[in-house]
Order: sequence, then structure tokens, then C-alpha cells
Amino acid sequence: MSLLAVGSVAFDDLETPSGRRDNILGGSASHFSLSASRFHPVQVVAIVGEDFGPAEYRVFEGRPIDLGGLVRTPGMSFHWKGQYGTDLNEARTLETHLNVFAGFKPDLPAAFRTAPYLFLGNIDPTLQLDVVRQMATRPAWIALDTMNFWIDGARPALLEVLKEIDILLVNEAEARSLTGERNLLKVYGKIRDLGPRILVVKRGEYGMLLFTPEGFFAAPAFPLEEVKDPTGAGDTFAGGFLGYLAAAGTLDLATMKRAALAGTVMASFAVQDFGTERVQALQDGDYANRVEAFKEMIRIG
Amino acid sequence: MSLLAVGSVAFDDLETPSGRRDNILGGSASHFSLSASRFHPVQVVAIVGEDFGPAEYRVFEGRPIDLGGLVRTPGMSFHWKGQYGTDLNEARTLETHLNVFAGFKPDLPAAFRTAPYLFLGNIDPTLQLDVVRQMATRPAWIALDTMNFWIDGARPALLEVLKEIDILLVNEAEARSLTGERNLLKVYGKIRDLGPRILVVKRGEYGMLLFTPEGFFAAPAFPLEEVKDPTGAGDTFAGGFLGYLAAAGTLDLATMKRAALAGTVMASFAVQDFGTERVQALQDGDYANRVEAFKEMIRIG
Repeated sequence: MSLLAVGSVAFDDLETPSGRRDNILGGSASHFSLSASRFHPVQVVAIVGEDFGPAEYRVFEGRPIDLGGLVRTPGMSFHWKGQYGTDLNEARTLETHLNVFAGFKPDLPAAFRTAPYLFLGNIDPTLQLDVVRQMATRPAWIALDTMNFWIDGARPALLEVLKEIDILLVNEAEARSLTGERNLLKVYGKIRDLGPRILVVKRGEYGMLLFTPEGFFAAPAFPLEEVKDPTGAGDTFAGGFLGYLAAAGTLDLATMKRAALAGTVMASFAVQDFGTERVQALQDGDYANRVEAFKEMIRIG
Repeated sequence: MSLLAVGSVAFDDLETPSGRRDNILGGSASHFSLSASRFHPVQVVAIVGEDFGPAEYRVFEGRPIDLGGLVRTPGMSFHWKGQYGTDLNEARTLETHLNVFAGFKPDLPAAFRTAPYLFLGNIDPTLQLDVVRQMATRPAWIALDTMNFWIDGARPALLEVLKEIDILLVNEAEARSLTGERNLLKVYGKIRDLGPRILVVKRGEYGMLLFTPEGFFAAPAFPLEEVKDPTGAGDTFAGGFLGYLAAAGTLDLATMKRAALAGTVMASFAVQDFGTERVQALQDGDYANRVEAFKEMIRIG
């Protein structure tokens, strides 16, 4: 009854006003699965190169993360080099080396094809659609993340896969560019026409919006004294949100609000250190305390 | 036991993607008092010209708004002409005619000098300080709004008046420019050193943040199908927030959260029509319904 996640596993070189790190674990499937596995078992489908070694496998060990779909192949892993200025909302890409990721052609292990929950991380929509078609049974829900690169450059394929999707997770600019609308309620109306019945708009330091047929929900981000590195915050949010939903097994609005809270809190940890470091080290008590602090912050008596 | 408001009363020419209006009532004291008077009696100190006639006086009639400090003088009222593109967060000023406002030198009527609550709208900080000094008794609290024009151009005077202030209301860019910090928790620390113990950061369509010694609060904006005109939204928020606080008579965190909700809901009405039109027409039931809808939206079970 796992949550199947398809995406990238990468090495990142990161530079932010708080410092720099080279060759640290990144990629959507890494951030997503480390976050989601706090709530529900995860199966990962991704591709890595020979530079992905014992130290990296160890990060996922001892967690309910099944790496049976992680293909290790000759060559180097996907490598991204990025830089942030004082405005941490905007990353500047310095280098992108696709390496073995250029040949990524997800082939789901038989045991993964009946997963009841599916997250399609931000990869080529043609591959996302191919994954959907490999499923032996239609999952209870399918969630998808994408980006402007595909919205602008692969729109027909993206529109095709969107027809199969229940939950779309994008940032504000992506939601607007996908629909041509600026007003987010109108954006949601158009997204529904494209397929997804649930829309999550990620707003970085401004939090998130959730649109559902039952109603909407808005949550701020958790205020922090220091944000060291925003890389992976969106995938960590998606992991908390969808991991919580998979564990709950329902999609009613009250559950989705609690799931949004889980995602928001997980993302708030992600940005407090570089890469996946803070989420790797997260203890149950840290999580529970911040959930309580967050609920108190937004509670009106 | 009124809430004393000092600011501008103006005529605006407004152009937004939803249409245009010429010569409609505007100015910080207009937006503020129409909003605040829903919660608590307001006394207004401002200056207008001969173009401010019976139709304008009528807008304030039948409400607990005391215009005893509204000076009408030969000449024309403050006139602002502004334009918004599809990004409604940013106004483009086309024309500013200060007119009689250039000679504004607030002189509080004797009956206003013992007001227990004082709001200093966005005017020259030298005038704001002069108003504070005219008070016969120190108000229970003093709130202040300002803008980058004064932060950049009249910093020494602004720092002087901030020493007298309890509640500072500014937008994000202003809060950062005033303190030289980007992180908002650090911004709040520096603001406290300058005087105000309570900070409200207005974020437009992203809502607001409230920082107090007791803790903080964050609320999103209310999602709307159409925003016709954002002019005056900040002053309408301030009116709802401070009017609610004046009526409650306390500054504990639970009360301030409810006040922030009142301000957020009032601002959500303000932007649904041009100038003060929607707030003028607001019925008790409209307000109560939206407060309930908003509480439901942010509630987590």
C-alpha cells in the first residue's frame, strides 16, 4: 500500500548567503521520499550513476523507503549547481549536467505497479504519462509536479498527462503560466477543466493555497530566524502533504488541511540546513513541537 | 473614548484592469475611518479644499465618525492619479497634486486631545510627532503607518516619532528598508529596538504577519474571484485592525489575532470595488458571513 514516487536523484552544488556545499544529495525523489516516509512507506523510481555510493544508500536506510526502482547505471548522476542571493525565492542555475538522467526511462518493477498512490515528480511529461500507463491498477490518486520548462516547452504532452491527474502541485508563476489567468480562483477553474480536481499552489515564504471542490485553504509559511537553503523545499512540502494523505487514505477537505500543515512543517525544516540534512536528522519530537507551534500561530480563538 | 485618526482625505483618479474612476473619495483617513467606524467611534483630523462638498460629507454621515478635526480651506483637495497593471500589487503614480494638503498642519480640537487611541496615517513624520505632542494625555496606544518616501527621505524625524509608537503597520519592503534586515523575525527585533513593541507587516494578496512580545500570527488574504482596485486596502486593513482593538480595549495576542481577522476581512471588501465604494455599502451580514468563511478557511481540525 505504498506511495510510489518517480523523479530525480541528484548531486547539488549549492551556494546561498549562509554558505556553500558541494556534491550533496538532492533531486526531487530524494527530498520527496525522505519527507513522505515520515508518514507512509514510499517506493522510489529514479536513476543514478556510479557516484551514488554506500554513503548515499545509507541516507535512505532504516526508513520505509523501497529503493527497488532506483537504477544504478554506468556514468555520473544528475548534477545541478545553483546559487541564491539574499532573495531566497529565486535560484540562479549555474550548471546543469543531466548525465545518466538524460537516458532516464522509468521501468516500474512489477511490485510497484499496483501502488495505490502515485507522485510524479518534475520530469518530462512524456515520461510522467508513460509511468501512468505502466500502472497495472489505477491508483486511488495521482499527484503531479511540473515546471515552466515543460509548461512552455512540452505543453501538449503535459496537457495529455494532466487528464490523468487528481492533484496538481505547482508554484504561483507556473499555475498562471499554465492557465493564462492571474487570479488564482480563476486559475483553479481552468485547472479543473484540464483534469486535476485538487490544486496546491506553493508560494515559498508566503506559504501555500489549497483548492478543492469542497472549499479552499490557505496557510502561511512558518516564520524562521534563518533560512539556509531553500533547495528542495517544494518537494519536501509535497512529501509531507502526500505522505500524510497516503497514510490517511482519504481526500476530504479536513484531512487535506492537516496534510498541508504536515507539508508546511516539513518544508520549514528542509530550509533550515543545506540539502536534505535537516530532514535526515529530524526527530519525532521536533516535528510534533513545530506542528503545535504552527497550529497555535494560525489559531484564532 | 474615540479612536483618533490623522491622515489625508483626497480625490483619486484610478485606472485598473477592471475600469477607471475619476475624482472619487480617497486618502488614508477616508479609508481608515470608514473601516474603523464599523467597530469603534472615530475622530478625524485632516484637511480638504472647496471641492470637498455635501456629497463627500454625506459619505461619513450616519456613522460614528466625528469630522470635528476636518478643516475645509480655500483651494483644492489632495489629488492622486494612479494606474495598476495586471499585477495589482504595484501602483504607478501618474500625477500627485498636494494642493491644500501641502499646508496641512494638524491642530487637534481640544476634545480630541484626550483620545485613548491614536492612529497616525502615512504623512510627514514631523507632523506625526507634532500630533503626539499635542495630546493632553498619553493614549493607551499609538499606531503609525509610513512609507518608503519618509523612510528614505525623512529618516531622523521618523526614528524620533517611532520612539513614541506602540504599533507599527508597514508593508514588507518598508519593514526591510527601515531596518536593513531581510528576515522578518530579525526585522521585528530591530523594530522593537526603535520603539514599537507590535509590528504588523502587510503583504497585499499574501495576507499579513503580526509580531508581538507574546508570539506571532500569520494570516493569508481572503481569495477573491475579482480584485477591482487595491487602492486603500492597507488603510482599510488598519481601520479594521485598530478599530477592533479600540473596541476591545486590550492588546493581548488572542485579541490582536481577532483584530487582524477583522482588518483582513475589511480589506477584502475594499478591493472588490473602486475607492471606498464597497466598504460604504457594507452590511453587517456581509461582514459576519465573510468572517465565518475566513475562519473556516484557515481552521485545521
